[in-house]
Amino acid sequence: MSASAAAVLGTSVPIVLAPMGGVAGGALAAAVSRAGGLGMIGAGYADTDRLAAELRIARGARVGCGFITWCLERDPRVLDVALDHHVAAVMLSFGDVGRFAARIRAAGIPLICQVADRDEAARVLDHGAQVIVAQGGEGGGHGARLRSTLTLVPEVCDLVRERGETVPVLAAGGVADGRGLAAVLALGAGGAVVGTRFAATAEATVSPAALQRMVRARGDDTLTTRVYDDVRGVNWPDGYAARALRSRFTDAWHRKGTGGVPVEHLQEATAQFRDGTRRDDPDTVLVHAGEAVGLIDRAESAATVVQLMAAEARCAIDALHQAAI
Amino acid sequence: MSASAAAVLGTSVPIVLAPMGGVAGGALAAAVSRAGGLGMIGAGYADTDRLAAELRIARGARVGCGFITWCLERDPRVLDVALDHHVAAVMLSFGDVGRFAARIRAAGIPLICQVADRDEAARVLDHGAQVIVAQGGEGGGHGARLRSTLTLVPEVCDLVRERGETVPVLAAGGVADGRGLAAVLALGAGGAVVGTRFAATAEATVSPAALQRMVRARGDDTLTTRVYDDVRGVNWPDGYAARALRSRFTDAWHRKGTGGVPVEHLQEATAQFRDGTRRDDPDTVLVHAGEAVGLIDRAESAATVVQLMAAEARCAIDALHQAAI
Repeated sequence: MSASAAAVLGTSVPIVLAPMGGVAGGALAAAVSRAGGLGMIGAGYADTDRLAAELRIARGARVGCGFITWCLERDPRVLDVALDHHVAAVMLSFGDVGRFAARIRAAGIPLICQVADRDEAARVLDHGAQVIVAQGGEGGGHGARLRSTLTLVPEVCDLVRERGETVPVLAAGGVADGRGLAAVLALGAGGAVVGTRFAATAEATVSPAALQRMVRARGDDTLTTRVYDDVRGVNWPDGYAARALRSRFTDAWHRKGTGGVPVEHLQEATAQFRDGTRRDDPDTVLVHAGEAVGLIDRAESAATVVQLMAAEARCAIDALHQAAI
Repeated sequence: MSASAAAVLGTSVPIVLAPMGGVAGGALAAAVSRAGGLGMIGAGYADTDRLAAELRIARGARVGCGFITWCLERDPRVLDVALDHHVAAVMLSFGDVGRFAARIRAAGIPLICQVADRDEAARVLDHGAQVIVAQGGEGGGHGARLRSTLTLVPEVCDLVRERGETVPVLAAGGVADGRGLAAVLALGAGGAVVGTRFAATAEATVSPAALQRMVRARGDDTLTTRVYDDVRGVNWPDGYAARALRSRFTDAWHRKGTGGVPVEHLQEATAQFRDGTRRDDPDTVLVHAGEAVGLIDRAESAATVVQLMAAEARCAIDALHQAAI
């Protein structure tokens, strides 16, 4: 990790756990931090009790918290839980950080802001972001999908430099192994925010069917959809959709154009989703996953993932250095 | 470039010019080849006379040719021009290579196949592709945009290895400087296919307004659209759209959903496009460009681009190697 990213985040390997709601809980976050990265608990749809419980599960490990900004606007009290706990960092994604940035910084907690394009990067710098996460559309879960990681990371690095600032930039989206980590470091990132690879670990709170599907899937098997949001009654603002594994369920209900379930079928689809989820049916369960899922072929412990990614990245860099290009 | 990519393509730097129709002519291709990369003339919509003329302009430089495969199906004679000329390589993109692969290989000309996802990579390997170009959706011009470069390149590399083959993989889409080149080499690519960065050179056949727009644009300023295809009467098959710079013209005519011009306005839009193009109006001209356009801030000669990209890549790799990650 660039000196400043490691300094701000307190990491020894340049890997940050993506704060995946419902997947990145206290156990996973603690495991990533103990392995030298930074574990981030996903606060998801801002359930105060759930976040407090996950922080208890992390049992004193140095972990951060990630929030969906538009959810915080609806119910800002969940942020108090994180600030009172004095978490290692707070990450804000998907919305206007203006209302929360000053409070987080005043609490002495590093403020990480995730952005989907250069314009959003400029805005979060105006609000005092201390780390920027440049999120490409290849990543799993929700996103605005305006840019790809490969082009957004160097452009945001250039923006930071042009402004005379030293804010480190992390890359999110598309990194699931050491090759990807080495690649984003070459682009100028201080490290990678990794989601899907950590979702396929023993410590992630995912179902057996979801884990099996991630291990078997190829990168061609994802789609961006609002189907799962519709049947869960989660009303994301316009401009966002989630990348998930395709399934018989999405084949049945995802409509081109809107990306959602036709309103006249919502009740039927919702019942089917609930039933399939209860049975942990692989054809139905929600599996948020990025395109890099195709690079994952076994479940590992989170510590092994951190160690393997760092070692593979070192190998890739050594090999490049030896090759005359 | 990996030994095999350099051996197959006859290059000394791991940079291949994207065969951009109407933009990558004989002058640009020759300049890239003379600088140590591989220049590729874009045959575009398969105009036999035009291709012969561009090959004459390349005047004996060792250059290849790139074809739009579905155009070749309509009029295969243009392929004869390239084969008779015994070009350095033939690249096929966007369609079923089955009808042409054997003929190209029988002519002793290296067959490069561009693919948009893992499935297509498997198909072109079946047809004897000697180099695979993994094209991410961040690139400029036409594409199927099924994957991003960052995830597709390593997955195709894994596929090649799993099949016990040694076909080199090149990365296309999102590479416009040495950081991007170093990144795709870290992913396992043997080199990069570069479009937009070479479109903004003195040797490219682009208008002054287009060149100026590329130099000024940011990566956020592109969109994928069928508007320019509609007004040019170019009927791409379903599943393809082109990434271009947004303009007042696309703001006026691009419709969400179809991405094209509403049929009732086609005549008006076409007249406006022709008039604006004739005047080289920056608000109207077609500028195919990838997201990496935001990394370009001046026009250069093609030779300078090749040299700078290689030198920057070496710097990025050296810096990574020295940093303890």
